[in-house]
Amino acid sequence: MREVAIIGIGQTKVDELWGKSLRELAGDASLAALHDAGLDRVDAVYVGNMMSGSANQQLHLGAYVADWIGMRYSEAFHTEAACSSGAASFRTALMAVASGEVDTALAVGVEKMTDSPGDEITSQLATAADAEWEAGQGLSFVALNALIMRRYMHEYGWKKEDFAGFSVNAHANAMANPFARFHEPITAESYAKAPMIADPINLMDASAIGDGAAAAILVPLNRVRSSAGGRIVIVAGSGAATDTIAIDQRSEPTWLKAAYLSSKMAYEQAGVTPQDIDLFELHDAFSIMAALSLEANGFAERGKGPQLALDGEILLSGRIPVATRGGLKARGHPVGATGMYQIVEVVQQLRGEAVGSQVEKARVGMAQNIGGSGSNIITHILRI
Amino acid sequence: MREVAIIGIGQTKVDELWGKSLRELAGDASLAALHDAGLDRVDAVYVGNMMSGSANQQLHLGAYVADWIGMRYSEAFHTEAACSSGAASFRTALMAVASGEVDTALAVGVEKMTDSPGDEITSQLATAADAEWEAGQGLSFVALNALIMRRYMHEYGWKKEDFAGFSVNAHANAMANPFARFHEPITAESYAKAPMIADPINLMDASAIGDGAAAAILVPLNRVRSSAGGRIVIVAGSGAATDTIAIDQRSEPTWLKAAYLSSKMAYEQAGVTPQDIDLFELHDAFSIMAALSLEANGFAERGKGPQLALDGEILLSGRIPVATRGGLKARGHPVGATGMYQIVEVVQQLRGEAVGSQVEKARVGMAQNIGGSGSNIITHILRI
Repeated sequence: MREVAIIGIGQTKVDELWGKSLRELAGDASLAALHDAGLDRVDAVYVGNMMSGSANQQLHLGAYVADWIGMRYSEAFHTEAACSSGAASFRTALMAVASGEVDTALAVGVEKMTDSPGDEITSQLATAADAEWEAGQGLSFVALNALIMRRYMHEYGWKKEDFAGFSVNAHANAMANPFARFHEPITAESYAKAPMIADPINLMDASAIGDGAAAAILVPLNRVRSSAGGRIVIVAGSGAATDTIAIDQRSEPTWLKAAYLSSKMAYEQAGVTPQDIDLFELHDAFSIMAALSLEANGFAERGKGPQLALDGEILLSGRIPVATRGGLKARGHPVGATGMYQIVEVVQQLRGEAVGSQVEKARVGMAQNIGGSGSNIITHILRI
Repeated sequence: MREVAIIGIGQTKVDELWGKSLRELAGDASLAALHDAGLDRVDAVYVGNMMSGSANQQLHLGAYVADWIGMRYSEAFHTEAACSSGAASFRTALMAVASGEVDTALAVGVEKMTDSPGDEITSQLATAADAEWEAGQGLSFVALNALIMRRYMHEYGWKKEDFAGFSVNAHANAMANPFARFHEPITAESYAKAPMIADPINLMDASAIGDGAAAAILVPLNRVRSSAGGRIVIVAGSGAATDTIAIDQRSEPTWLKAAYLSSKMAYEQAGVTPQDIDLFELHDAFSIMAALSLEANGFAERGKGPQLALDGEILLSGRIPVATRGGLKARGHPVGATGMYQIVEVVQQLRGEAVGSQVEKARVGMAQNIGGSGSNIITHILRI
């Protein structure tokens, strides 16, 4: 297997981008990544997206994006794994380059959600759950996460306010990220006063959807020109695993087994342990998912995830900085794009380009993208 | 890059399968492939599907299928490239195994189309075209192909009846395939009398949609046990290429440039030429596509594709047998599953298991799956 490096990254702001179409969003991020890599051509384009078929009446995003960005005739197709669609496109690009089938690959995640009314988006997001056993019973995604959070609080004795630190940290880190949706600091007090959405999840526990795209260029490490300059970011580890699609089928709904399994693969491939990870872009779609991710990936003991937030260990200066550019909570969560935003942000940190929220001496970073209620989890470890 | 072999295949009948859900279809084909391979576990599941998000209100098919077939915790995600979604799942599995990331992979294509009313399916199929530049103007998929066929007849002087042989051959070959949708022979006379859909495409030029699933198991060649018995089918060549998504952007709409490019890659990788191909499962969604495919892949000179049908060269006994198990026309076209049916059928031929429509001494076979109006084309060459 060939070692693979990331030589270019690009992203758009996450926002309600009424002036940008689906193809323009994907194009803007992709062309920025190509420019960053100093390339004008790639062999393959893999597009991560969840819901364009219903939200934008457009499927076939491989050919659609490749054509728009001037990569006509390249290989191209679309990967989907609900909210982990972005990481699926990155893993596809990694396997394509590692296999030798492809020498230069573009992975781009894109989602254009604000073309659809909010109630339709809620239904479309529910297609990540089990249509017959969950969505058909009226369970929305926030409701599913509320069930998990309520169970977790019951099992381990946490109070709702113990989760505030995850959201406060995310909003603080987003202040310096020009691509983040929110530039509004919040406090434990404003968190406590936020309107309830699905008890116990309030507005400040939940990430905001939005429009956006993020992209990266992958090449074999041995073809990176020494003249490229700057730090070369290597894909050191990759792992993917699933769990039941419906949470009622799990014996332990508060344990992200797929996260445990996928990071185990990535750790082993990279030859590192949780102690070696300098920053962790986790999937804080809801604050409960941040806590569960820290536990399943070996950063906290089981049932003790919120303690890392209470102790300040998730801050930029802490033991394991998370959501360093705002995370899903404050950078925003354009669902199929999120996994690629996480990769872009880890690359920024490792290159020392995370202006305003740089983790000092960051050499190894991890990104983990979650699809469904923990039913599809893809983990990547990058290093310089 | 590791050489990859196919050690198991499975499929369901193509039909209006009212008694089978989306997950049951994918499960039936997948479990048949696992049984054929003698495996009870795979590392990864890649699901090719086009339109389940709208037709079945179900996305996230990786976790959904993996869970259903007992492959909980395996890697799994969904690939989409319109009607070439099936081949995209196969190519993903190939790259996953070739790269070393995965040792055993299941590729399964599935489509459950008859849950939606016909007019909605027409709209959903149009999401493979350009939403703004084609579908939004009212162009359906059959209309786009009718424009190409009309142009081709004008350029090269063919008459409509010259295309009859493609459909007659497909229906004849389907007679012996228990998984085919149609077991009704047609003649040049019945072809000529078929009702017009979009002039010049009539009912006998067009493939029928349907419900169905087909699957294959891929492993590294060097791990195939010598005790496995039977013929070992090797993936000798793979190639993928795109063209403009909208046909008005092409200078030559009657030339499948993406087919030419993708088969060129596959031929080179396999070290073969068109003369070495013993059978060709082509993408005869419409009879014009059969003619254009024969030309772009080097079996006929440009503008002379229909001559192969007129001369009987596409028959089982001819120079280049096509649609040997019925093709899209008569086996049926459950869109995201079709590319995997093609792979399964080539494997049947190479193993000598194509009962009733066996190509004698078949040693090298090609499958080519087309997405959109020739905008995404993926080619595989298999050999024993």
